[in-house]
Amino acid sequence: MVKPERKVVDPVLGDGFGEALRECWTAGGKAGRSYATIERDDGFLFITDVAEYFDDFDKLERHEQWAVKRARGRVLDIGCGAGRHAIALADLGADVVGIDPSPGAVDVSRERGVHALMGTVKEQGSDLGKFDCMLLLGYNLGLLESRQESVEILSSLARKAEVGTRLFGNSMDPALNTYPDHVRYREENHRQGRMPGAYHLRIRHKNLTTDWFDYLYLSAKELAELVVDTGWEITEIETEGQSYAVELTLTRAGAVRAG
Amino acid sequence: MVKPERKVVDPVLGDGFGEALRECWTAGGKAGRSYATIERDDGFLFITDVAEYFDDFDKLERHEQWAVKRARGRVLDIGCGAGRHAIALADLGADVVGIDPSPGAVDVSRERGVHALMGTVKEQGSDLGKFDCMLLLGYNLGLLESRQESVEILSSLARKAEVGTRLFGNSMDPALNTYPDHVRYREENHRQGRMPGAYHLRIRHKNLTTDWFDYLYLSAKELAELVVDTGWEITEIETEGQSYAVELTLTRAGAVRAG
Repeated sequence: MVKPERKVVDPVLGDGFGEALRECWTAGGKAGRSYATIERDDGFLFITDVAEYFDDFDKLERHEQWAVKRARGRVLDIGCGAGRHAIALADLGADVVGIDPSPGAVDVSRERGVHALMGTVKEQGSDLGKFDCMLLLGYNLGLLESRQESVEILSSLARKAEVGTRLFGNSMDPALNTYPDHVRYREENHRQGRMPGAYHLRIRHKNLTTDWFDYLYLSAKELAELVVDTGWEITEIETEGQSYAVELTLTRAGAVRAG
Repeated sequence: MVKPERKVVDPVLGDGFGEALRECWTAGGKAGRSYATIERDDGFLFITDVAEYFDDFDKLERHEQWAVKRARGRVLDIGCGAGRHAIALADLGADVVGIDPSPGAVDVSRERGVHALMGTVKEQGSDLGKFDCMLLLGYNLGLLESRQESVEILSSLARKAEVGTRLFGNSMDPALNTYPDHVRYREENHRQGRMPGAYHLRIRHKNLTTDWFDYLYLSAKELAELVVDTGWEITEIETEGQSYAVELTLTRAGAVRAG
């Protein structure tokens, strides 16, 4: 008997990440209930228990706690997710605005008391005013995307800042991960002229997927090379295993660059 | 600047399920460590914490405990996974042979003390002898695949059995799940002339994926219709929410059918 061929269809383009946050929040933020699947373009899947986006300060990684404790004043939390860093900072007395491109993330953050708005690292929103600190935590240095984009993005953030403004971000050094699939992926990136930790990802949840996006893992040394000419300087580094957080300080007024 | 296009590649064909079991077993069988992603052909993802494949008897769903307690003698555990049912049964004094098409599942089951062999519901292995009971637990009535295949498979199992042999399996009634994506999937199945709960799936883990396979969710009523003419009869049903376990008993010697 000939079986009719099954046609495999792609997931639906949508707010996969935000819907995972929303589901987890509705279920009380408990672990083991809601997962986001991060799919890399080589077919590799990373599974995240979304409950970690609801971690309170005590559960944050030590190098993230270090960053949260150093930030103060008016703070822009870029890619705020479900608001874990914003809430921890507000508890310490900071005045935090969170931005995220995910409608679900913004909704959940607001329900948790965060002043959250739609926005991205490239389009933060026009009338947000000046900030004392900016955050790219939760490994959101990844939002710098690539060698080329990172320079544009850091320069753009510099134009929204003033000399003395600090930016806290974290990442992990991709070269320290020796898992064969990751080594292979970095080698292919190298062959293509990309930075080794330049990942191409999408986030899936149930039948939804985000669009593909670039996400950069980079060492502190690679970051130091990228910030040259952007106005930012690395002024502190806190290392924790393969991960680290940095404090960047704007030391020169942002150069006007073709965006 | 023109960015070179990223080519999204498919995961590597391999023992995604078995590698997930192996990883979890290596990590001590603990929850929150290792996940299998079950991808449906409409793009829907189900995430399973693989630790559940290591559950002991007390953690099994009640209707599965019911089935395990009723089985005895020589038992063939079809699709034994990491051996949770085989181990529970052996503890109750049964003599269990587990079969699974996944090399990783067979390895892990053996390391856990199960007499496990490579085999599928269609090709159980030629010299395994006769069994008092067969198991399709862990929702492995799903291995009946489809309306057509299920009749072939049940008839084939009947030929390996004797009058009085019992088969324990479980499933869930797909019609009781009102989640919109699942309703839509069942409706599309209906339009294509398939049983509503005829899922087309593959199991992904890290960079690996199994091939696509058919997996059937069906109500006890649908099962009762399928077993007609196979020699099997439903002799007991134990319901638990949307799930249920059945005891099938071979009441007529297996009919010789074109396989």
